[in-house]
Amino acid sequence: MPEFFKLMTHQDAFIQLKNGIDYPLKPEEIPTLESLDRITANALVSQEDLPTFRKSTVDGYSVRAEDTFGASPSLPAYLDIAGEIPMGHTTTPSLRVGQAFKAYTGGMVATNSDAVVMEEHTQKAGKSTIEVTRPVGSGENIIGVGEDIRNGDFILPAGHLIRSQDIGGLIALGIMDIAVLEKPLVGIISTGDELVNPDISPTEGQVRDINTYTLSSLIQKAGGTAIQVGIIKDNYQEQFEAAKQALDNTDLLIFSAGSSISNRDLTSMVINNLGEPGVIAHGISVKPGKPTIIGIVNNKPVFGLPGNPVSAMVIFNLLVRPTIYLVSGCTSPPRLAIVPAILTKDVPSSSGREDHVQVKLETSADGNLYADPLFAKSNLIHSLVKSDGTVTVPFDKGGLYSGTKVDVRCLY
Amino acid sequence: MPEFFKLMTHQDAFIQLKNGIDYPLKPEEIPTLESLDRITANALVSQEDLPTFRKSTVDGYSVRAEDTFGASPSLPAYLDIAGEIPMGHTTTPSLRVGQAFKAYTGGMVATNSDAVVMEEHTQKAGKSTIEVTRPVGSGENIIGVGEDIRNGDFILPAGHLIRSQDIGGLIALGIMDIAVLEKPLVGIISTGDELVNPDISPTEGQVRDINTYTLSSLIQKAGGTAIQVGIIKDNYQEQFEAAKQALDNTDLLIFSAGSSISNRDLTSMVINNLGEPGVIAHGISVKPGKPTIIGIVNNKPVFGLPGNPVSAMVIFNLLVRPTIYLVSGCTSPPRLAIVPAILTKDVPSSSGREDHVQVKLETSADGNLYADPLFAKSNLIHSLVKSDGTVTVPFDKGGLYSGTKVDVRCLY
Repeated sequence: MPEFFKLMTHQDAFIQLKNGIDYPLKPEEIPTLESLDRITANALVSQEDLPTFRKSTVDGYSVRAEDTFGASPSLPAYLDIAGEIPMGHTTTPSLRVGQAFKAYTGGMVATNSDAVVMEEHTQKAGKSTIEVTRPVGSGENIIGVGEDIRNGDFILPAGHLIRSQDIGGLIALGIMDIAVLEKPLVGIISTGDELVNPDISPTEGQVRDINTYTLSSLIQKAGGTAIQVGIIKDNYQEQFEAAKQALDNTDLLIFSAGSSISNRDLTSMVINNLGEPGVIAHGISVKPGKPTIIGIVNNKPVFGLPGNPVSAMVIFNLLVRPTIYLVSGCTSPPRLAIVPAILTKDVPSSSGREDHVQVKLETSADGNLYADPLFAKSNLIHSLVKSDGTVTVPFDKGGLYSGTKVDVRCLY
Repeated sequence: MPEFFKLMTHQDAFIQLKNGIDYPLKPEEIPTLESLDRITANALVSQEDLPTFRKSTVDGYSVRAEDTFGASPSLPAYLDIAGEIPMGHTTTPSLRVGQAFKAYTGGMVATNSDAVVMEEHTQKAGKSTIEVTRPVGSGENIIGVGEDIRNGDFILPAGHLIRSQDIGGLIALGIMDIAVLEKPLVGIISTGDELVNPDISPTEGQVRDINTYTLSSLIQKAGGTAIQVGIIKDNYQEQFEAAKQALDNTDLLIFSAGSSISNRDLTSMVINNLGEPGVIAHGISVKPGKPTIIGIVNNKPVFGLPGNPVSAMVIFNLLVRPTIYLVSGCTSPPRLAIVPAILTKDVPSSSGREDHVQVKLETSADGNLYADPLFAKSNLIHSLVKSDGTVTVPFDKGGLYSGTKVDVRCLY
């Protein structure tokens, strides 16, 4: 066991990955309206001023501010209503001294006017006259041309994860197509002589392959496209051939390996023979998930995840998910939901490893949120089904006491 | 303005909605592998024991625990290696007194054995004999039949949002199809004489309709299907006809209304004439978003959102999103990502309203995360594009001071 149990922290492993991999994804042009959750390929610059015309932010009257100076309820300013500027009106009327034009929220204001008096600060005084009972300053209640964004301003940086509001900002400027990076292809090879497809009723000694599918869902959530290679037997040649072909056709490769020493050795041998540098970490200081293998082959990340579903999910969230965003060219991965809660039981751990404990969240009668550790064996998928998230016991702590305020990390 | 500016809190509005609406969605059977982010229609019960056979959790030897009692490095127990049980082996060999079978992580253990000795606590002593240097207790390193989940146990409750791990738990039991609730259909009517489709170059006075599309993305993220009615003019009859038809064909209806008083009155009139009870809140005590209209028509929720994109998004997140999950029958909506940060500037507010302030997150040289309030006018879509999330100033606070620790709510 030459390199086995030289444990690496997951933080160090991630830095090594970051420095050793390529970012191979090419840009593709897609409709902006279909770009939710995609990654911008380039920085985007506005070619327009927005808004393109001066707008009122309130319902009221567009006026010359100086015509209202000194106005008060007892000594109002009297202005002539010269007309109204309805929503969508496409020509801008001009204002003369002592005049006011009815203005609407989001609608145009008159040329020569430099402020809008709110309706609430006016009173009708006859058919075509208003009393203004409060002065407005120049620029008040008006959005100027280009105040939202100016021609030449940056809209979004490259590597940005496109959110609903970003789509709004882009189409507000008429940007109907956008260059995004291709989605990364993530290969999954499920290894194990005991595995059968989930639609098959397993005989004694066999188990249904579930990691291919939990990993596919997690990959989809992280913006990747899962390429399911399927189940490959615990045989060097078969695994090597499958891995070689999968690696040629994907941007990141995951082995869902058996957790036994012999299986790990097999995965490790396959990764080392696929290309340089091969395995960079064989075992990481995380529980569950110690028997994780991390490799780089031809500048592509390769993971050997433990076969235990709980370990596989913990390591996916800790390492594979950030690596998928890295390969995706995304500089702003979404943050996970973190919920503060109070631990209900002591959680023992050991200094020198980082523990990730599954917890169930429960709101007590006093309204506090409690995190109840599940303490299940890491082989039990239903401990994940019962779990609402994980609590981390840091590397340098021997455990956490009941009553500790903890951050629960949720994943959907 | 009969009912205008009787402001309601968003919490009260949500309770009224909850009590006044139907949950009309029907179950549909879909493949479990395609059920990510869907909602379970029924509680699910296991029809199997999992695992179906006794498994080792380590690499080592399956033994009779009593054969190892008293073993130590100086006085090891000697056991005969009777064979191995490879992964996927489908018949279970039987163990005799003083024997051991090689066992693998996740693999079967021998009949009559009640524990597994870890490989690390054994040494080879000749070709077919091992020395056991540490005793194991009965049941140690073994997962029993049904220890993950038992026949008859609940797997998931009804109304559960299906996550990656839940798919794993279901297919581990061979549940390849699942009854989920239909996705809710959410109609969007964008009203305003000034609006044009985003692919059209607006003339002065016109603006591109963006809310139809930001709302569609937000609806998609919340598990709904957006039904885009399109742009409808500020005309009672046109709006009423469009709304009536849309409401017949959707489970929830949103007007993206102009924010001017006249537009609000129009939306309000349309909602009141669509059916009973009509408008239940006209104005809520939230900034931005005060001119929100909330209605119930024939037990369906109807919203009149402000036309300002920032207000529309704040109110969507606060009220529409939870209402979509409510209509979806989802009892466990996903929690939003919340990031603790330190406020960089004073945020003024007024007691008696809840403020939602857009902030940009910035990590300082000292490693702290700071929330920098953007203070942009709520009409500016690009203030949302620049924003990383919102900070809430509670209803009973007059503001927040610079340096306050705040929770930043992020939405992707």
